Amino acid sequence: MITLASDFGTPYPAAMKGVMLQRTDARLVDVAHDFPRQDVRTAAFWLREVLPYFPPAVHLVVVDPGVGTDRAALAVRAGDHALVGPDNGVLLPAARELTAREGDEIEVFEVEYADSEAHPASETRAVEPRAISSTFHGRDVFAPAAAEIHEAGVEDFHERDDVVAVGEYEDLRFPDPTLDGDVAVGEVLVVDGFGNAVTNLPGELLDGRESVAVNGESVPVVRAYAELPAGDRLVTVGSHGNVELAVNRGRGDDAFGVTVGDEIRVE
Amino acid sequence: MITLASDFGTPYPAAMKGVMLQRTDARLVDVAHDFPRQDVRTAAFWLREVLPYFPPAVHLVVVDPGVGTDRAALAVRAGDHALVGPDNGVLLPAARELTAREGDEIEVFEVEYADSEAHPASETRAVEPRAISSTFHGRDVFAPAAAEIHEAGVEDFHERDDVVAVGEYEDLRFPDPTLDGDVAVGEVLVVDGFGNAVTNLPGELLDGRESVAVNGESVPVVRAYAELPAGDRLVTVGSHGNVELAVNRGRGDDAFGVTVGDEIRVE
Amino acid sequence: MITLASDFGTPYPAAMKGVMLQRTDARLVDVAHDFPRQDVRTAAFWLREVLPYFPPAVHLVVVDPGVGTDRAALAVRAGDHALVGPDNGVLLPAARELTAREGDEIEVFEVEYADSEAHPASETRAVEPRAISSTFHGRDVFAPAAAEIHEAGVEDFHERDDVVAVGEYEDLRFPDPTLDGDVAVGEVLVVDGFGNAVTNLPGELLDGRESVAVNGESVPVVRAYAELPAGDRLVTVGSHGNVELAVNRGRGDDAFGVTVGDEIRVE
Repeated sequence: MITLASDFGTPYPAAMKGVMLQRTDARLVDVAHDFPRQDVRTAAFWLREVLPYFPPAVHLVVVDPGVGTDRAALAVRAGDHALVGPDNGVLLPAARELTAREGDEIEVFEVEYADSEAHPASETRAVEPRAISSTFHGRDVFAPAAAEIHEAGVEDFHERDDVVAVGEYEDLRFPDPTLDGDVAVGEVLVVDGFGNAVTNLPGELLDGRESVAVNGESVPVVRAYAELPAGDRLVTVGSHGNVELAVNRGRGDDAFGVTVGDEIRVE
Repeated sequence: MITLASDFGTPYPAAMKGVMLQRTDARLVDVAHDFPRQDVRTAAFWLREVLPYFPPAVHLVVVDPGVGTDRAALAVRAGDHALVGPDNGVLLPAARELTAREGDEIEVFEVEYADSEAHPASETRAVEPRAISSTFHGRDVFAPAAAEIHEAGVEDFHERDDVVAVGEYEDLRFPDPTLDGDVAVGEVLVVDGFGNAVTNLPGELLDGRESVAVNGESVPVVRAYAELPAGDRLVTVGSHGNVELAVNRGRGDDAFGVTVGDEIRVE
Repeated sequence: MITLASDFGTPYPAAMKGVMLQRTDARLVDVAHDFPRQDVRTAAFWLREVLPYFPPAVHLVVVDPGVGTDRAALAVRAGDHALVGPDNGVLLPAARELTAREGDEIEVFEVEYADSEAHPASETRAVEPRAISSTFHGRDVFAPAAAEIHEAGVEDFHERDDVVAVGEYEDLRFPDPTLDGDVAVGEVLVVDGFGNAVTNLPGELLDGRESVAVNGESVPVVRAYAELPAGDRLVTVGSHGNVELAVNRGRGDDAFGVTVGDEIRVE
C-alpha cells in the first residue's frame, strides 16, 4: 500500500500514480492533494494526524517549495512504515507519531537521484527513459522512489545502492504549550475545512470543566458540537485529542477571530 | 466493495480509509467528500441518484451534524447493499431506491458503540486500542462498522452482537410535486456543480412539448444543452429523470434566479 | 486499468465508477474531475501531459459540451492504450503523444449507441436495463463503453459489433510557436493550479541563458523556483518541457499579466 499526499491539486498527482503503476501493483490511497500550497508545516500536521491510522504502508509526501535545488530526497523508516519526500521536515512529525506507541527509533535515509541537464520532453513525454525535470520531482524522483521502496520492502529498502543513511536532516517540531497552574498558553496549529481551530493544548485541560476562559472570554466546554444552538461558540476536545475552538454549524476561526499561529490562552 | 461519502473535504476521509484498511482488503470507492457541510438533505439526494449504479456494496455515509450526541449509528440493509451512517435520515432515500426494482424491504439496524470518557490521543494517536472521539465518529465509529459489516457480509452482519434491529429511526423524504391538469408545482431539490437546478418534477411532463412556462415565462424544451446557443435558458430532462432548469454552457440557477427549495411552477 | 477524467466535479464520476464496476474488476484511477467546465482544449492539454506516464490502460475522458447531440462516441487505439470519449478532439493530442516514441499509428473507431426516447428514471434508477439520458453520456454511454473495451482488450475491442472504424473525426492541435533567429513567438497553453503559465515554447530556447526578454521585459532564467527570493518573476523549463512563466511561491499568471491564449514573445 502506498499513500499519496501533496499540494498539487489536479492533475499532477495522476502523473505520479502513472509512474508508480509502471513499477508496482500496490494499492494507492490518496491522503490529500489540496494542502495549502508550499505550506510544509500544515502538511506535516495533517500527516501526523492521519497516517497513524493506516496499516503498514509507504507514504509519498510532496510539499516541496525547494524542488530543483540541492535539498535531498529522503526516505524515513518508522516502524513498519516508510515515508518518502523532500528534506524539509514534512515527514518527521508523522514518522515520530508512527513510532510513538512501540517506541521504535526512526531511521532517515537519503535517496540519491541523478540530476540532469536534458529537458524532460526533449524527445517525447512518452515512456522511459526520460530526464528529471527541475520543477516536478514528485513525478520524476519521489514517485519512482516510493514505488521502488514499496517493492523492496520497508525492512530492506535501505540495502539499495541509491539509499544512504544520513545523520543530518531538516526537522520540524510543533511548539509545546506552556502550562502554569490554571493558565495554559498555546497556539492554533491548523484550521480545518469546517473552520475548527485546532490548538496544541492537550484535551485533558478541559476535563471536568463546564466552561473556560479563552483569551479572556468565557466559553462553554462541550463534548459534541450539537449540544449548543447553531452559531454558538464552544470549546471541545477535537478528534486530534487537542483543545479545539469551534462553532456549532459555523466556523470557529471566524467566530473567535483566530488563525494559524495565534496565541490561545485558556484559564 | 465499500463506497465512501461525506462532507469532510480532506484529509479526514483518509483517516477513515486507514481505519478500514486495518480491517478489510475491500475495494474503496469515493462517492464525494464535498457535500455541503452538514446538509443531510442534499447528501441524501445525491446518494439516492448515485448509489443504485453500483454493484452490491457497503456504503459508508458520514454527514453528521449530531456527532457526539446520543443519535444512533445505523446500518441499513437494502437488498444486496448495506448503508452505514448516522440516524438522521441521510441513508433512507438511497436505501429505498436501491430496493425499488426488486421490491425488497429495507431493514434498519442500530450499531452499538461504546461511548468513552477518555480522549482519543491521551497516549498516542498511533494504533489501537484508542478511545472514541466525540467529534469524529466517521473515523472512530462508522468506518470500523462499515469495514466489519463488509467482512461479515451484507447477508449476515445482523448476527453480530453489536447490531440490533430497530423499529424507529429518522426518515427523510423528498416532497412530491402537485400535478393538476396542465399545471405542475414542484421545487428545486439540488443545484449541481454546473448550475443545473434539479427539480422534483417528473421528466414525463415535458414529453412532446417544445416549450413550457416556468414560473410564468416561456422556456424551450430540449433534449441536449447544445441544441441552443450558449447562454440560452432551457428546460430538459436531466440524468436523474427529473425536470432540470439549465443554460447551455452557463448556470441555470443564476439564469432562472432559483435555489434549493424554491417553488417551480410548470405549465 | 481504467483512468477517468472529466469536468464533472462530484458526485457524477462515482456514477460512472459504479457503472464500470458492474462490468469489470479493473483498477480505476482518477486523473482529474475538475477540468474547467466544457473546456475541451485545456482537458486535451493535460491529458497529453499526464496519460503517457501510465502503463497500458483504457482512458475514459468526458468533457462533452455536445452531450445529447449527434456527435459520435469515439474509441481511439494508441499503441497499448485506448481512449474513450466524445468526438470533439479531446482525445487526439494524448493519443498522438502516447504513440510518439514507438511511432505507432493511432486508429479511430466510433462506438455506436442506441438513442432512446424513454427517460432514464421512468421506472427506477436502480439497476439495468435503463434508458440512455440525453445529458449524462459519461454514465450511460462512455463508462459502459470503457469498461467493455477494457474487458475486450485494447488489441481486440475493434472486433465488437458496436465498434466501427471511422476516417473523419474532430481533431485538435495546439499551435506551434514561430522561431525566427533570436525571437520566438508562442502562446500560453494553460495555467496550472500554482499559477504557472505554461507556453508552447520549447524549453531548449532557454539553454545556456541567464535571462531572456519576455514580451519586452528582462526576466531571469532559472532551473528551480527557489533560486530566487519569494515573489520574484522567473522563466524556467516546466515539467512539460516547455517554457513556463512563474513566480517563486507566487502566481506567474498574475505577475506576468497573462492568461490562456495570450501571445508570449521571448528574445
